[in-house]
Amino acid sequence: MSELLDRINQPNDIKNIDIKDYKRLAWEIRRFLVRNVSRTGGHLSSNLGVVELTMALHLCCELPYDQIVWDVGHQSYTHKILTGRKNEFESLRQFGGMSGFPKRSESDCDVFNTGHSSTSISAALGLVKARDLRHGTQKIFAVIGDGALTGGMAYEALNNAAKMKSNLVIVLNDNQMSISKNVGGMAGYLGNIRTNTNYTGLKENVENILKKMPHIGDALIGNIRGFKDVLKTILIPGMLFEDMGIKYIGPIEGHDIKKMVSAFEGALKVKEAVIVHVCTKKGKGYPPAEKDPSSFHGVGPFFVRDGSNRTAVVLKETYTEVFSQNLIDLANASDNITAVSAAMPSGTGLMTMAKKFPNRFFDVGIAEEHAVTFAAGMAAGGLHPIVAIYSTFLQRAYDQILHDVCLCRLPVVFAVDRAGIVGSDGETHQGIFDIAFLMSMPGMTVVAPKNAWELGELLKFAVTHDGPVAIRYPRGEAYTGLSEFKQPAKYGKGEWIIKGHKIALLAVGSMVKTAVEVHDILQKYGFNVSVVNMCFLKPFDKELVLEVASSHSLIVTMEEGVVTGGFGQAIMEWLSNQSYSSVKVCCVGLPDKFLEHGSVDVLKEKYGISAGRIVERILGIVNQSEKV
Amino acid sequence: MSELLDRINQPNDIKNIDIKDYKRLAWEIRRFLVRNVSRTGGHLSSNLGVVELTMALHLCCELPYDQIVWDVGHQSYTHKILTGRKNEFESLRQFGGMSGFPKRSESDCDVFNTGHSSTSISAALGLVKARDLRHGTQKIFAVIGDGALTGGMAYEALNNAAKMKSNLVIVLNDNQMSISKNVGGMAGYLGNIRTNTNYTGLKENVENILKKMPHIGDALIGNIRGFKDVLKTILIPGMLFEDMGIKYIGPIEGHDIKKMVSAFEGALKVKEAVIVHVCTKKGKGYPPAEKDPSSFHGVGPFFVRDGSNRTAVVLKETYTEVFSQNLIDLANASDNITAVSAAMPSGTGLMTMAKKFPNRFFDVGIAEEHAVTFAAGMAAGGLHPIVAIYSTFLQRAYDQILHDVCLCRLPVVFAVDRAGIVGSDGETHQGIFDIAFLMSMPGMTVVAPKNAWELGELLKFAVTHDGPVAIRYPRGEAYTGLSEFKQPAKYGKGEWIIKGHKIALLAVGSMVKTAVEVHDILQKYGFNVSVVNMCFLKPFDKELVLEVASSHSLIVTMEEGVVTGGFGQAIMEWLSNQSYSSVKVCCVGLPDKFLEHGSVDVLKEKYGISAGRIVERILGIVNQSEKV
Repeated sequence: MSELLDRINQPNDIKNIDIKDYKRLAWEIRRFLVRNVSRTGGHLSSNLGVVELTMALHLCCELPYDQIVWDVGHQSYTHKILTGRKNEFESLRQFGGMSGFPKRSESDCDVFNTGHSSTSISAALGLVKARDLRHGTQKIFAVIGDGALTGGMAYEALNNAAKMKSNLVIVLNDNQMSISKNVGGMAGYLGNIRTNTNYTGLKENVENILKKMPHIGDALIGNIRGFKDVLKTILIPGMLFEDMGIKYIGPIEGHDIKKMVSAFEGALKVKEAVIVHVCTKKGKGYPPAEKDPSSFHGVGPFFVRDGSNRTAVVLKETYTEVFSQNLIDLANASDNITAVSAAMPSGTGLMTMAKKFPNRFFDVGIAEEHAVTFAAGMAAGGLHPIVAIYSTFLQRAYDQILHDVCLCRLPVVFAVDRAGIVGSDGETHQGIFDIAFLMSMPGMTVVAPKNAWELGELLKFAVTHDGPVAIRYPRGEAYTGLSEFKQPAKYGKGEWIIKGHKIALLAVGSMVKTAVEVHDILQKYGFNVSVVNMCFLKPFDKELVLEVASSHSLIVTMEEGVVTGGFGQAIMEWLSNQSYSSVKVCCVGLPDKFLEHGSVDVLKEKYGISAGRIVERILGIVNQSEKV
Repeated sequence: MSELLDRINQPNDIKNIDIKDYKRLAWEIRRFLVRNVSRTGGHLSSNLGVVELTMALHLCCELPYDQIVWDVGHQSYTHKILTGRKNEFESLRQFGGMSGFPKRSESDCDVFNTGHSSTSISAALGLVKARDLRHGTQKIFAVIGDGALTGGMAYEALNNAAKMKSNLVIVLNDNQMSISKNVGGMAGYLGNIRTNTNYTGLKENVENILKKMPHIGDALIGNIRGFKDVLKTILIPGMLFEDMGIKYIGPIEGHDIKKMVSAFEGALKVKEAVIVHVCTKKGKGYPPAEKDPSSFHGVGPFFVRDGSNRTAVVLKETYTEVFSQNLIDLANASDNITAVSAAMPSGTGLMTMAKKFPNRFFDVGIAEEHAVTFAAGMAAGGLHPIVAIYSTFLQRAYDQILHDVCLCRLPVVFAVDRAGIVGSDGETHQGIFDIAFLMSMPGMTVVAPKNAWELGELLKFAVTHDGPVAIRYPRGEAYTGLSEFKQPAKYGKGEWIIKGHKIALLAVGSMVKTAVEVHDILQKYGFNVSVVNMCFLKPFDKELVLEVASSHSLIVTMEEGVVTGGFGQAIMEWLSNQSYSSVKVCCVGLPDKFLEHGSVDVLKEKYGISAGRIVERILGIVNQSEKV
């Protein structure tokens, strides 16, 4: 069977494949991808879309000497196959296995780590400067999707690539999508180039046409010097990029290897930055993914025959779904509620809002900074917008949250989805920094629900609060336990879960459930520890903390986020100022490290925030102080 | 004299001025601005440039009902004059006085606070959505400079403004500058529009020209439908914006009120987003500022007659200058050193680098995100780049520092200038969050020099360290005291300054000097406190901290940054894990607030980090514990 793929075992092996076999190899790669991802889960549609594109790039490159930067990086599977990592696909995205993204530590053919969007042109420009200053001759490619091109950073980089006197090939992989359908003016512009058959194939004829009309042009529009050039330019697609000072080649059929190789080779000869506009189809070659590329963007294991979910168990309701439903209720009740997504309406649970209240839902594209300040503007205009962004992507709008929202105390609600450990996407996607960076922003209110019910409750609070509120909740199934604890959300108030003795666990969000587990285990050791739900991280319930401090000898703070700069340190420092030197505080949270991919449970155990690990730590402290 | 300006006392008063007097009023406003700023200091060039533009906007608006968002905001002085704040100019940018930026709290004519760049279109788009959903009829303007247009966020917003079915007027104030000369492809494009006289004034004639050539066009290029429209568009400047789906009007002479009013009124009638491209001259009307707009961007008090500095005392060397000189030495010694600025080569001290090593210096425009990832790319390519950005603007690249630099442990040096309280620019510009956000990034090394000598020393360390390093130093004069303490910089090592008893001050950067002052004052109270220079904030010197903890009963950490998430909390939490319960830790730093404008000393006193306030706090703790 896979006789061609068998011959691809290390970088550049593709060059030994006969040109007539490219089609067959592409087919084999697609079959390999579908089979493997159907078992492990992973990114599918985007990878199926760039099989020929990746092959064409590798045919033009000598790896690892030449350099390819993959924007976002989840489309690098074929690149991994072609650089000797075929056999690692069994462990794709699993703990200890191969990452789903480019990693410098994984292969010297991965020149730059990616995971977040719109970074590739900037990084590639840096590589170009390094090449030129160090007198190298590397070919350097940045591969960026039309979705990633909505990110402002990509434009900042294009602005700098303009008029550069050195070669950089920017491959614009245009599939008309981000994860969802791409939006905005640039998408419209690219769409025009793709669909306007009047443009296509015209380029070669422009010179001929112009040769026929010199006198006429001169006669009619005498005051325009260089009219020919002007006309020539307008007849060539990609004028917007040319206007900015970047050469444009395209559009090129993105599943035709010969055409792409020819375009890349042409582009490599230009001593400037060149955009090669390549049109691909997301999900190409696997009918279920072609039909519904969004659903096959990131998938769990599935049956190859029809693409149906292999994990037959009906999933319980996720936090995202709980958020989604509560949002609809709130939007029904108040016309002032609006919702903003940065290209992830589906992932963040905003599709229902988009359908029910299309005029109050805004997908701004991959543009987190704009999303936040756009919401700030709506709030300044009297609305109460909710911005739903994954924790890891909210990082991209740090300054907008601080400078445009908090500074004016504008009532913007941040629905911080995927907060905490996210699992198999790994280190670029873990949502472990949001507590730290939000806690230090003056005027920000930070909350986290202990369970599904409380998410709704805190959301209700948030949309009535006259200032910014961030609600963080984890990826996946919403916890429905502790349903008997239904204290109404009140600004800055925590909630007693278990009143015990000596040791008190002050837990945040997902860690409330863990705290109860810790309580149960410690009971077997003879401890009856207290558990408090600190649903308000900022401002936290000072009265309650004092009450706990005055009646316990050890306080353990628990958060699913980095300890440095987090909730626990804030509690510890505040308590220290209250001169409660009799109570010891221990901060449980994640260490000062990037966390690799792996299942959430495995990572929680490894990094010390599983119930078992926390019990160990508490027993350690207790034993230590007994010895002293 | 100022008879016209006397009649401007509240919003909309300009409408009572006779049209023939506009020129005179503009002249009076300029005289007022020059006189006042010459006494108080402030932003001059940008304000002189937009006098007529502001007048034209106010003539089109009914304030505060209509809404103007001023990008960056430092050009809002004429807006302040025209909205009843003329008499506040005596206190401009001084503690308790009027802010130099738009402030919602200052006037209901200031609809959105600004200070950082490139936010206005996003905010205005939000205001537009609020207006439409709430059935308002406000006119909404965003005023953005060509410099701010290099910021990616502005492009994200333009991308969203495209094809909008509601009016928004984006005034592109094109003066060919950011603070320095504007850079990049967009600047080149705008320059083409400005200078190509073939374009100017052509728009009106396009229809006529087209009417004359229908058959010819059809005959020659039969396969192009809508050729007329295509040709029409190319003959109109601003095609790049039109390509993106945004209407374009311009270029308009930005000192001609009548033409601007007419353009704005035309633009307001379109049910879409419209860019009105207005060309102005920075510094207009005041010869010294016209001649050297960069130097008069932000100024201290000066003599009106020639623009010379009023503060005749020769300024001592600043930290920026010390950085600049050391950088040159390092660049001389190694070809791998490069430097990156985000539109502030002068402010960050990179001009010398730009002149001496033009091929190793890069001004990327107002584009902090790109600046950082571009540097990451250079580092991945084997160079050792130094990114010099003010603390407050570095916030804009939070994710790029974390995701593109720290994740790969790339050797990028961040020269974090203006770290700490910056003074009269006020709350949008205080550099008080960098410690907090950098401390929580895995793999980041954070250092701060105690004096001028140590800045050089730490910089030398930074460019040899194989990983990211942030060096933070304050605005203004470099401290040259403590010159006898010359411990060579060593990764993670602190430095003893004074060995005393009981109380130890662990101070960071600028606070080392303050710590010595605290030591001197406390001596009069009979205390001989220890002082330690914690030049490495992360990783801090654990051995040294343990030594201090085991020999003192009170540790006071001191940093010029917010306490929440800062250095002190990290020390406290780490120590707590070492079970040194006998030592009390007190974290001195800035409170969880935005700090208004005012002199650095006044603000340090008010917010508790002056030597006097710290002594009070220490004595309070000592007295408290004696009572217990």
